[in-house]
Amino acid sequence: MTQMNKIEKWTRFELELQGPSSGNPFLDVDLSAEFRCADEMLKVQGFYDGNGTYRIRCMPTKEGTWTYTTKSNASELDGKTGSFTCTPAAADNHGPVYVHDTFHFAYADGTSYYPFGTTCYAWTHQGDAMEEQTLATLKEASFNKIRMCVFPKHYPFNRNEPVYYPYERDADGNSDFTRFNPEFWHHFEKRLDDLLELGIEADIIIWHPYDRWGYSTMDEESDIRYLRYLIARIGSFRHVWWSLANEYDFLLKVKPMELWDRFIEILHEEDPYGHLRSIHNGDVTMNYDHTKPGITHVCIQNAAIRNVVEWREQYGKPIVNDELEYEGNVPYPWGAISAEEEVHRFWIMVANGGYAGHGETYMDEKDELWWGKGGVLRGESWKRIGFLRKILEDGPAGGLTPQRGSEQSIFPGRMGRYFNVKFAGGLNGDYHLIYLGDYQHKILIVPLENDDYQIDAIDTWDMTISPVTAKKIEGDETYLYDMPQGENAPNNRGYALELPDKPHLALRFRK
Amino acid sequence: MTQMNKIEKWTRFELELQGPSSGNPFLDVDLSAEFRCADEMLKVQGFYDGNGTYRIRCMPTKEGTWTYTTKSNASELDGKTGSFTCTPAAADNHGPVYVHDTFHFAYADGTSYYPFGTTCYAWTHQGDAMEEQTLATLKEASFNKIRMCVFPKHYPFNRNEPVYYPYERDADGNSDFTRFNPEFWHHFEKRLDDLLELGIEADIIIWHPYDRWGYSTMDEESDIRYLRYLIARIGSFRHVWWSLANEYDFLLKVKPMELWDRFIEILHEEDPYGHLRSIHNGDVTMNYDHTKPGITHVCIQNAAIRNVVEWREQYGKPIVNDELEYEGNVPYPWGAISAEEEVHRFWIMVANGGYAGHGETYMDEKDELWWGKGGVLRGESWKRIGFLRKILEDGPAGGLTPQRGSEQSIFPGRMGRYFNVKFAGGLNGDYHLIYLGDYQHKILIVPLENDDYQIDAIDTWDMTISPVTAKKIEGDETYLYDMPQGENAPNNRGYALELPDKPHLALRFRK
Repeated sequence: MTQMNKIEKWTRFELELQGPSSGNPFLDVDLSAEFRCADEMLKVQGFYDGNGTYRIRCMPTKEGTWTYTTKSNASELDGKTGSFTCTPAAADNHGPVYVHDTFHFAYADGTSYYPFGTTCYAWTHQGDAMEEQTLATLKEASFNKIRMCVFPKHYPFNRNEPVYYPYERDADGNSDFTRFNPEFWHHFEKRLDDLLELGIEADIIIWHPYDRWGYSTMDEESDIRYLRYLIARIGSFRHVWWSLANEYDFLLKVKPMELWDRFIEILHEEDPYGHLRSIHNGDVTMNYDHTKPGITHVCIQNAAIRNVVEWREQYGKPIVNDELEYEGNVPYPWGAISAEEEVHRFWIMVANGGYAGHGETYMDEKDELWWGKGGVLRGESWKRIGFLRKILEDGPAGGLTPQRGSEQSIFPGRMGRYFNVKFAGGLNGDYHLIYLGDYQHKILIVPLENDDYQIDAIDTWDMTISPVTAKKIEGDETYLYDMPQGENAPNNRGYALELPDKPHLALRFRK
Repeated sequence: MTQMNKIEKWTRFELELQGPSSGNPFLDVDLSAEFRCADEMLKVQGFYDGNGTYRIRCMPTKEGTWTYTTKSNASELDGKTGSFTCTPAAADNHGPVYVHDTFHFAYADGTSYYPFGTTCYAWTHQGDAMEEQTLATLKEASFNKIRMCVFPKHYPFNRNEPVYYPYERDADGNSDFTRFNPEFWHHFEKRLDDLLELGIEADIIIWHPYDRWGYSTMDEESDIRYLRYLIARIGSFRHVWWSLANEYDFLLKVKPMELWDRFIEILHEEDPYGHLRSIHNGDVTMNYDHTKPGITHVCIQNAAIRNVVEWREQYGKPIVNDELEYEGNVPYPWGAISAEEEVHRFWIMVANGGYAGHGETYMDEKDELWWGKGGVLRGESWKRIGFLRKILEDGPAGGLTPQRGSEQSIFPGRMGRYFNVKFAGGLNGDYHLIYLGDYQHKILIVPLENDDYQIDAIDTWDMTISPVTAKKIEGDETYLYDMPQGENAPNNRGYALELPDKPHLALRFRK
């Protein structure tokens, strides 16, 4: 039995046990444990890891002494007890990410978390050389979340066999969905730990339709066994998010809506840590009903980014638009927008109080597209997305609320109306972040009462920040409205900001 | 009496008469004439032009001998008769522009007319030096329509007094709305003739709210007198279009909707030539009901350019989006988009079977903004708009029909669906023009049956046209879908086009 006596909060305690290896332990053996610390109790499932080895993992959520007792239908595994001490979290360990303040996220210790994710669906299936390269790239980039599949991927540009298969296979390549392949899972978990070290949340895609091995068309019993095995194995990784599927609607023929609902409920009820749960649509008309209680946040694929404010109202949960189309040049619109457009869409999502996900799909002779396999980033948007993340993190804690029509806004009235269709803007107390998009005002009029604000112009492409001169409007400037229909005109008084006169600027107001 | 014996078709016959100059001839004297040629009859109003001079103008619409008889309550003007011969139109004279084929325009002789207009609201009020400069600029640019006000303009960046006033004024600057100022009209008509010489249609804005002289708030009787004077004076100019107002909705307090309806009906009934008639909204929610029968085409201000196909369906008339926002840098979003964005919006409008209008609003120390006063063009979009015009004129006669879901489309099914949200595309028989917008495909798959098409990639910004290689898809290309959910995928077979791999391209298919 492995003994671990001191465990840092939100890290992993693992109990290793030896038990039966005959028959099919994956089907035959039930194993669970209750972990207790004062009035806290976590009930977790163990799992068979091959060669007669069983494991039970626990992520302690509270400092202090934890005790546990196992329960099993196999006598060798039943009634094992023990204890460990949970020590305080280290400085760079903030715990799992949860929903915070309705539309936003925070780590368990209260630190704000702003998701700036990327997408490498099948990066863990590419072999060590390329996977190490992916990790090196991630270390240089500023992403703090990655969308990744458990299963290998069969799709345009993704034709290669995986190194490891999640289930045992016979000589003809037929999988036995009752027998997991521990080697696959050891590798997968190693990659999860690599991400943890980089501070990157793992947005785990449990099912997807891009399949030639049969993983997308397993029967319901196998699906549920897989889901529970996943919870048992990686629920204790603090940086895991559950994404039920990528493009679940392309699988509706084999997994009807009721089954997706059931999967979500299983996760909701059986993941003792309550990791974030969502599900990602394919067709924009098939967005899952994210108001369902098992869903923690909205994961959406939709290029109609201006709708972010409506989505917030519709779902009352954080909005993460993980596919607003990718920077790239493939034959399909989902992966062929310019870097400029990708950055533009990110800013609109974020400045309106939502979040967005990155992907990169530049065609490559060796089919090494970042979005599919990882490797290296070839584009230009990722740097600007990192710049945007830094701006958010440099601001006050907590997330942005859309500027539109808000009473807190420093841009009320007609000026506020512009935020519906022209600008994107978010506020957080006295902090305002406004994205001007395609507009390149030389002068912008802001109806401030006074000049208490420190104002910066942020060049979202060149990644520069420069202070803006605000000049009090005296009233005789040539650009002001002064006739009756001026009532319909934008707010006409306050301060005139002299801007760099180019598009894709943002303005930051700090009191 | 001026005698003109030979008049080219669609040019101007003018009968000059001397009559009473005492009292107020503008109010006291009625003058009209009937012009006949075979079974054609045109009833036109004459007008007082000051100093006892009266004029009756007629644009003959038919070759042959025309005779006329005048009618007046002033005996000197009554019962005058005469005749002239209408000769064939010269090669560059195609007659007035009318609606053609529901959504498009053509000259009276059947030649296609694609409106590519610009906006210089008050250019005729700037004095000869600047007005000549405007004409010189227009000669170099490729615009074939200009939106221009009759009345002078009071607005941001437009503070100067006009050179001429349309009405007589007293020493205090108060206008007498019963007495037109012939000098103003001579000048205005000279500028109209200058435009005619350049082949530019004059989209005459009859009322507008940008006013400090009282022209926007005249009483109803004066308004109608003005409208009829306008028809009498310039209805015979073949290149005149009637734009009832700019931003009519900002004048609703003084001119309620019923009055606008009445103005339109007067034009509809009393303009013997049936010049094009429309009316331009301010607020996007206040678009005039262009289904009304007096309206010939939709003049709209709306930056939501993707709606062009819906507007076509809603109104069943040609769509001219004359304010999709202007290239410039003023403090207001209506005049602060980049040249790239202006060109992008033009292409979306036009490739979807609509039309668009240009304006340029770069701030200037002397307040010489093209959109207000004319002068010189400083921007970059006008050249690309000219390039687009040339592409349309190089295509088959007639206008484009939106590609979306059309049975004629060479891009049916799923590929056709892309046109709803991703691409803009129009067709005309075997001719297809497709704008790819923000997408920068290296390869694009088109489900062509054969390679009968000559295909070009058009760089809408660099203004280059280059042939595209179409490679028949063999079936094993890495970028193709080949799994079940491929049913939902874009069309997967046909030809692969190798594209220049940059955004803002268009594709042209010609059989």
